[in-house]
Amino acid sequence: MTVRQLSLPELVDGLTALGVPGVGLWREPVAAYGLRAAAKLVRDAGLAVTTLCRGGFLTAERPAERAAALDDNRAAIDEAAELGTDTLVLVSGGLPAGSPDLFGARERIAEAIAELAPYAAERGVRLAIEPLHPMYAADRCVVSTLAQALELAGRFPADQVGVVIDTYHLWWDDQVAAGIARAGAEGRIHSFQLADWTTPLPAGVLNGRGQLGDGAVDFRWFDAAVRAAGYTGPVEVELFNDGLWAREGLGVLAETVDRYRTHAR
Amino acid sequence: MTVRQLSLPELVDGLTALGVPGVGLWREPVAAYGLRAAAKLVRDAGLAVTTLCRGGFLTAERPAERAAALDDNRAAIDEAAELGTDTLVLVSGGLPAGSPDLFGARERIAEAIAELAPYAAERGVRLAIEPLHPMYAADRCVVSTLAQALELAGRFPADQVGVVIDTYHLWWDDQVAAGIARAGAEGRIHSFQLADWTTPLPAGVLNGRGQLGDGAVDFRWFDAAVRAAGYTGPVEVELFNDGLWAREGLGVLAETVDRYRTHAR
Repeated sequence: MTVRQLSLPELVDGLTALGVPGVGLWREPVAAYGLRAAAKLVRDAGLAVTTLCRGGFLTAERPAERAAALDDNRAAIDEAAELGTDTLVLVSGGLPAGSPDLFGARERIAEAIAELAPYAAERGVRLAIEPLHPMYAADRCVVSTLAQALELAGRFPADQVGVVIDTYHLWWDDQVAAGIARAGAEGRIHSFQLADWTTPLPAGVLNGRGQLGDGAVDFRWFDAAVRAAGYTGPVEVELFNDGLWAREGLGVLAETVDRYRTHAR
Repeated sequence: MTVRQLSLPELVDGLTALGVPGVGLWREPVAAYGLRAAAKLVRDAGLAVTTLCRGGFLTAERPAERAAALDDNRAAIDEAAELGTDTLVLVSGGLPAGSPDLFGARERIAEAIAELAPYAAERGVRLAIEPLHPMYAADRCVVSTLAQALELAGRFPADQVGVVIDTYHLWWDDQVAAGIARAGAEGRIHSFQLADWTTPLPAGVLNGRGQLGDGAVDFRWFDAAVRAAGYTGPVEVELFNDGLWAREGLGVLAETVDRYRTHAR
């Protein structure tokens, strides 16, 4: 998603040339290219698929909407298995229109995960609950902190349900160190993602994730914390940024690798 | 601030006509009207000044900036005393430019409050630490949750330093019920403010606070929670909203009173 201006073959070639060993994919470009073709393309290039984004949106109240959401998540799990990744990222969903009931929405997420986690496990896929920044609580994700994501994940086996540590969403939280340590101890860090926090935020607050080094996040601190917690998996850089998308994609890819080396490791 | 298009005399007349017993003031319009004149205007109308907004911005590292911030806060305390309010709201300040050190910034706030709280207490003024939504952590306020504000306030006597419960900043937090109960038990709820959470957020995310009833906040829940925690003080409605500011002010004032009665009590 960081370089969505690139086609999948361009992305794969670019990553291979830069020596990047894996890639996190999103469902939409995979579907547009063709699921099987995408899986073959990435596999033939020797790239690991680190995660698939995203399932989730599990807070609907109406039975038909709820059934549709579960169907869509089962499809996402199937796609993850086909792509050869062991991790599907879940963005839980916001409040249904007109409802202020955060507690109810969070419970419906837990009920949905109870249905989806065994289905995923049978296919070798883990669900990774991603706490999103609290500014998305109303319309995107009522799971807003790492502690909350861990409470939810804790109802399920750690090899079936874990969490995503994304610096963009969690950097501000004075409880995040304790959360990372707990997540590691429980074996629930299923994904580690980087983006910087830059201001001012753009309208809609979706596409202002900063290039590494441009903002407020202390990446070395996060990297040390997840490693101290026992995490040895891949590190993804996930930037939604109108400015980066407007540039030539391979240049953004090379810059991102360079920034990662300068600021994050 | 909800109706900043009104002059202070228009505001006072409007509130009096609507039977509103008090008003929270901001320093800038008070200074523009004249501090003594503003104090007399409000006092003569029989309105209580519920709070003065705002002191704070206490995270600077450089000695000269730090001294200037402390001077400005002492001035704000003097103004609060002159206006006859017992509460100065503190917006703590964001990260200094180029610094990712959240812990250090939070410690500098504590050190500054240690200097300011006794000065305020001698003048009959309490300091109310306002946790701001985490989306303001970089550039406005590194105190992002009620729990964090209470940790900070807890280093000082409760009659000198407390917290602001503002629904806009806290509604998303699954720990807010526990925080409100603790704040009440400690006698630290020094202000209670209402605004609704509406999306999409505008660019810069400053002026999109929703009119009561337009968004995701459950005001009756908050009102019941602060009352159950023993709070019997005033309730302020504080909306920063370009749409409301563009309208005729007395109409917005009447609408706000109506929305308060419909949605909040």
